Amino acid sequence: LSEKKKDMGTPAAVRRARDVAKWDREADVVVVGLGGAGSCAAIEAAAAGAEVLVLERAWKGGGTSAMASGQLYMGGGTPLQKQCGFEDTPDEMFKYLVASCGPGADEDKIRFYCDRSVEHYHWLDALGVPFKPTYMHYLDGTDPRTDDGLSYTGSELAHPFSEIAVPAPRGHTVQQEGSNAGLLLMEKLLEAVEKAGAEVVVDALCETLVQDDDRRVVGVVAAIGGEEVLVRARRGVVLTAGGFIHNKDMVRRYAPMLRKCRFRLGCDGDDGRGIRMGQGAGGDAIRMDAATVVVPFSPPRQLICGLLVNPTGQRFVNEDVYQSLIGEICLMKQDGEVYLIVDDEIFVRPEVPHEIAAAGDTIEELERELGFPEGNLQHTVATYNRGAEKGEDPVFHKASDWIKPLTHPPYAAFDLTAPKSLYSTFTLGGLHTRPTGEVIDPDGQPIPGLYAAGRNTSGMPAQGYNSGLSLSDATFFGRHAGISAAAASGDVD
Amino acid sequence: LSEKKKDMGTPAAVRRARDVAKWDREADVVVVGLGGAGSCAAIEAAAAGAEVLVLERAWKGGGTSAMASGQLYMGGGTPLQKQCGFEDTPDEMFKYLVASCGPGADEDKIRFYCDRSVEHYHWLDALGVPFKPTYMHYLDGTDPRTDDGLSYTGSELAHPFSEIAVPAPRGHTVQQEGSNAGLLLMEKLLEAVEKAGAEVVVDALCETLVQDDDRRVVGVVAAIGGEEVLVRARRGVVLTAGGFIHNKDMVRRYAPMLRKCRFRLGCDGDDGRGIRMGQGAGGDAIRMDAATVVVPFSPPRQLICGLLVNPTGQRFVNEDVYQSLIGEICLMKQDGEVYLIVDDEIFVRPEVPHEIAAAGDTIEELERELGFPEGNLQHTVATYNRGAEKGEDPVFHKASDWIKPLTHPPYAAFDLTAPKSLYSTFTLGGLHTRPTGEVIDPDGQPIPGLYAAGRNTSGMPAQGYNSGLSLSDATFFGRHAGISAAAASGDVD
Repeated sequence: LSEKKKDMGTPAAVRRARDVAKWDREADVVVVGLGGAGSCAAIEAAAAGAEVLVLERAWKGGGTSAMASGQLYMGGGTPLQKQCGFEDTPDEMFKYLVASCGPGADEDKIRFYCDRSVEHYHWLDALGVPFKPTYMHYLDGTDPRTDDGLSYTGSELAHPFSEIAVPAPRGHTVQQEGSNAGLLLMEKLLEAVEKAGAEVVVDALCETLVQDDDRRVVGVVAAIGGEEVLVRARRGVVLTAGGFIHNKDMVRRYAPMLRKCRFRLGCDGDDGRGIRMGQGAGGDAIRMDAATVVVPFSPPRQLICGLLVNPTGQRFVNEDVYQSLIGEICLMKQDGEVYLIVDDEIFVRPEVPHEIAAAGDTIEELERELGFPEGNLQHTVATYNRGAEKGEDPVFHKASDWIKPLTHPPYAAFDLTAPKSLYSTFTLGGLHTRPTGEVIDPDGQPIPGLYAAGRNTSGMPAQGYNSGLSLSDATFFGRHAGISAAAASGDVD
Repeated sequence: LSEKKKDMGTPAAVRRARDVAKWDREADVVVVGLGGAGSCAAIEAAAAGAEVLVLERAWKGGGTSAMASGQLYMGGGTPLQKQCGFEDTPDEMFKYLVASCGPGADEDKIRFYCDRSVEHYHWLDALGVPFKPTYMHYLDGTDPRTDDGLSYTGSELAHPFSEIAVPAPRGHTVQQEGSNAGLLLMEKLLEAVEKAGAEVVVDALCETLVQDDDRRVVGVVAAIGGEEVLVRARRGVVLTAGGFIHNKDMVRRYAPMLRKCRFRLGCDGDDGRGIRMGQGAGGDAIRMDAATVVVPFSPPRQLICGLLVNPTGQRFVNEDVYQSLIGEICLMKQDGEVYLIVDDEIFVRPEVPHEIAAAGDTIEELERELGFPEGNLQHTVATYNRGAEKGEDPVFHKASDWIKPLTHPPYAAFDLTAPKSLYSTFTLGGLHTRPTGEVIDPDGQPIPGLYAAGRNTSGMPAQGYNSGLSLSDATFFGRHAGISAAAASGDVD
């Protein structure tokens, strides 16, 4: 009996509808979590005429979205892109995202999003989310600390992506000085939630789902003010409770490489509870090994002129691909054993501190100081310098903006090894959903009454990452999950 | 209604016990699948006094185990190791397996197995599974075509593993000429199943599990001779229905990189059905991205004296680590873009044909013919040769047995790129089980009445692979799943 009781207290052990004697509350659509995804789901479900109840475990809404830098990845010809003088089409955006988010990117979701990205921009604009029509040049960065609206937040300009799709900047940053525009985004979304008439209950921890004998999700068990509250969802439940980077067991089980990352990005609620709730109701969780990994060796951007090498003294990537692609490669393909080689001319302290592993008046000395095998680093730098004299990188195809021969001693190597260096990460795996937000089971069948969005799901990037995709996944697919739930025929007696 | 009916026909949509009006058959323990894991589960459950019914979808037992080369990874001081003059301990075996099967290896399972590996050897021996006490030297191979019993089937002798644990050969091959001793193993196990008194029904495709309102698995829905048959399991169901390499959707969803592998190793039944059945009952599936990948560039073994390089002309691994570790690195870390460089002295056609991508009288010419960037391959070979003259490989630490300077023109590069070259693969991810075989949910709680083993589960190797581990996972943890199921208090009215 005690074991059974324990089972009932865990997210993946659903409650049977037949065991619910009486519902304490009810609504048409119940949204679990009030971050970017939950707020957009609530707004759209309410707009569609549904009575909406949002349950948020923290004392107020915001979630991880409120901690974000406030970038959304949008394109295909948004007003901001046009105002800044950039052309873009849904097709070029699609080609780029499929190439950069693969292998295994969800092409259906990417197609659905690229075709509706301009519409999504207008929707956010109508809610009062501000974007300033100024472009921050890529030489200056990807992550405006200014209030500039548009910037490159991916590898669009880098090999091989620049040859796959016509580049365009697609990072749309909410207008605010500093790097916390996510908070402003959430303020606007939370205002809209209120205006839409959705009811929000905070300090409400959802424990598990309630499911009937036909596998339909009909409600949620929540702990509100220490009391168990049974909440009926007449039409559907939308899970928008974030990822699992703060759940050590889940990380060990599904994505053990991430244990090498020192900085785990997310709010306390990112403990995978929403994913486990969905799994308990029969939802499939996919790409649970996938993650965003950033090794912030730049800014300053001039450090991109350095060379990333592994302990055998060899390069392995063009250093100008986006920082999250570099991070993923450093961790997953180089086992977190990476150094950045610079000369005196490009030397500058990175904004995020990294130790200097070694220095030397010659590359030979640097190589020796690093304990690298003799000759490889010398060859690597000599080869690079030979191309660099002509403004070329024939081996890895770094763009000419970032090419300078490393010929000014002394030379140094920043230590980018994990976990010594700061690797920053959050998870990308989660419930398997259709573009509509329907949660599907391992056979591809929908779980009736169950919807999800944001990092609670596996979204557009199955691997590879571009900044802004998380807020896009959250807000755009959150909207559609809300729309779908509101439209569901539901559980009305 | 039609959608509901469709749901009911898929493995992950469990049948409710309350919807079962009448059971057609019953047994204490029902085993799903009669390969290596299922047969051992049946033998042990029957030995423990349970009435056992095995349901096999093919016309006879054997599964993928019968297609295997008949190697089991055993050690810690088995009689065969002793007879061949090798010392080994459970601790050294544990250290090696944790290092080679990581990151994220299941240390509990590995510990459990290492401590009982000698006992497992005796158990197989008592069933008449023959092992000839002769050792095949590692210079001659890992996969005896002779009837030799003992060989190295992992990276024990290679850097860095040789420094982590005292090496010992642990590949125990069932005594039979040729490379299909798995069939003999299965003959012996199937004999033992019959002798133990377990009933076997073939042409019986299990469709889904039956679960009661307390989440206990109480039976199976099977299609036998085209008829739906409801089979009650008084104590438990053991899922031993293999991996999912033959399910394209599952591969795309969980392990998309494997789509580059041309050869998918498994019997038709490896469609992940058993995994989905377990997921439908609430079981967690973990490490679904993991796989064994082999790029069989050797035998002949002398090809290990060649150099594996990527398209930038750089080496990335000591070529003497085990072929499945090389395969995993080639696919997962080098994106399947790999060539093997040889000179005329070591040149020989690999047993598994690989095309020659280019040839040249000098390394410079070979480099040009390959379309590699200028200089890297020349540097790689020159660096290697310099060390090789002294019998050393200072960069990647290949063991001296495999080191010869490549100085005899003409030179050639075998094309080991995927999918052009034959990459052979099977999946390692599956249901999350305890060492006892209990299937656990995403919260770590057991699903009462549900057990699993073999490739239906995530076993000892979470990544990395040594030949013999699949038959070990199957037979050893199959036994324990059977023991646990037979001991379960069960569903007796």
